[in-house]
Amino acid sequence: MAEPSGFKSIVNRIACQVHWGDCDPAGIIFYPTYFRWVDAASWALFEGAGYGPKWMRENHMAMPLVSAQCEFLAPALHGDRCEVRSSIGRFGGKSFVVDHEIVRADGTVLAKAQETRVWGRHVGGPGTPMKGQPIPDELKARFRAP
Amino acid sequence: MAEPSGFKSIVNRIACQVHWGDCDPAGIIFYPTYFRWVDAASWALFEGAGYGPKWMRENHMAMPLVSAQCEFLAPALHGDRCEVRSSIGRFGGKSFVVDHEIVRADGTVLAKAQETRVWGRHVGGPGTPMKGQPIPDELKARFRAP
Amino acid sequence: MAEPSGFKSIVNRIACQVHWGDCDPAGIIFYPTYFRWVDAASWALFEGAGYGPKWMRENHMAMPLVSAQCEFLAPALHGDRCEVRSSIGRFGGKSFVVDHEIVRADGTVLAKAQETRVWGRHVGGPGTPMKGQPIPDELKARFRAP
Amino acid sequence: MAEPSGFKSIVNRIACQVHWGDCDPAGIIFYPTYFRWVDAASWALFEGAGYGPKWMRENHMAMPLVSAQCEFLAPALHGDRCEVRSSIGRFGGKSFVVDHEIVRADGTVLAKAQETRVWGRHVGGPGTPMKGQPIPDELKARFRAP
Repeated sequence: MAEPSGFKSIVNRIACQVHWGDCDPAGIIFYPTYFRWVDAASWALFEGAGYGPKWMRENHMAMPLVSAQCEFLAPALHGDRCEVRSSIGRFGGKSFVVDHEIVRADGTVLAKAQETRVWGRHVGGPGTPMKGQPIPDELKARFRAP
Repeated sequence: MAEPSGFKSIVNRIACQVHWGDCDPAGIIFYPTYFRWVDAASWALFEGAGYGPKWMRENHMAMPLVSAQCEFLAPALHGDRCEVRSSIGRFGGKSFVVDHEIVRADGTVLAKAQETRVWGRHVGGPGTPMKGQPIPDELKARFRAP
Repeated sequence: MAEPSGFKSIVNRIACQVHWGDCDPAGIIFYPTYFRWVDAASWALFEGAGYGPKWMRENHMAMPLVSAQCEFLAPALHGDRCEVRSSIGRFGGKSFVVDHEIVRADGTVLAKAQETRVWGRHVGGPGTPMKGQPIPDELKARFRAP
Repeated sequence: MAEPSGFKSIVNRIACQVHWGDCDPAGIIFYPTYFRWVDAASWALFEGAGYGPKWMRENHMAMPLVSAQCEFLAPALHGDRCEVRSSIGRFGGKSFVVDHEIVRADGTVLAKAQETRVWGRHVGGPGTPMKGQPIPDELKARFRAP
């Protein structure tokens, strides 16, 4: 979903591997593993744009979920080396969509996921409830592909 | 999504609790936890209909995923006691949809999830690839609400 | 390890079940699952003594680990219903030991675990570092078996 | 624990990072995460010596646990980049000890873990019980530091 302005997002890539404990008795990846990867990939996407864990922590920011979905296209086995490719699908007022592709080293697309998240802040400091914040234009600009 | 024949599914309930390690630094449930619950809830739904882990294992059956999605409606905190209510949304030829509601003890619906799964079998025995199997009418009948 | 004073701890029990995703391609429980259970069991032990998640949160308390160990005595399979039986092994000045037995419904002891934890507090409030606190006698008294 | 013959093991290193979902409401790593890392590190150690996931799978081998322990020396935060350094502590007849150090990028040793494992085989093929196998001298030789 492109922005009306023709927004085109940077793509961040993280490496991951299917570990023994990520698999189930059928010998293939246990699907919540993909969501663990995808969550880590969203944080890495933001780190790549200058909003790393330390910055997020010091500014009491987090990115709570509105929804998440994943299509599973091919089974992954123990030892498979993969990459999660993540980009912003769309920026809304206080929320945004992150698109993810999970691709195995041989080029097979294993899964496609999408998360809708809120740009949230513990407005009263750590330990207080999170509230959605307007996404600054400066933030959006940092995700624009050159 | 009701079956044309007006299929109405049994509802299975499992209890779960938000543990310390299920939460993230924002102090709320880490969302892949819901997918772990929902997976366990699907297995419990089938156990309730007579297809328990032992039967599945002995018959080399599993239920690999086609897709999964979840909407997150309210944040859950460490210690929250919940219930996952699961039912068959639809039976296809070799696949089926499971609908889940995650409800906190105070009645708050925390999340709604949906999985599309295949009725799969390791046709050459354990360790061999899984293939989708036609879902027998007898199986469907066992999920019909009385 | 009994206290010099002959301290004998209450025993708390929590139910748990080996889920599909808790198992590995060998078809048995993936061992970090036991540590997840044991962590939840320690929190439940404290809840049973009056120090529930809500109290802990409001008082900025947590129980960080010094060490943890587990012996694995028998393999567990998908679907196995278990119980974690937890008790205080020893109270020190600011730390304590929790002993755990993981027992399957058929009476088989699957594993024995031990955690050494600190009675810790975010002394500057949420988001600040945790520091070990002297364990009050009143707390110790609540864990004494009648 | 060195072998009588003065066995000195190769050391395998894997990179890992503390993800958002690996942390708990205290904002530090949830300790079973270390055991997940350490399990993956043991598999990587064996892969480095020529016994990769594919070989293990085709030969119906696994490495079930006898015991596992970990000392936690310093807290890790979201975003911390780490390395697990793994080596064979000792080879027995059918079992072996793996020693692990978890070191943060700044050189801080976060944790030290030790696993005792069995060199196990599904002797009747996938889906059958695992039995300990004598560890071949050729295997031991591959772990000897040059």
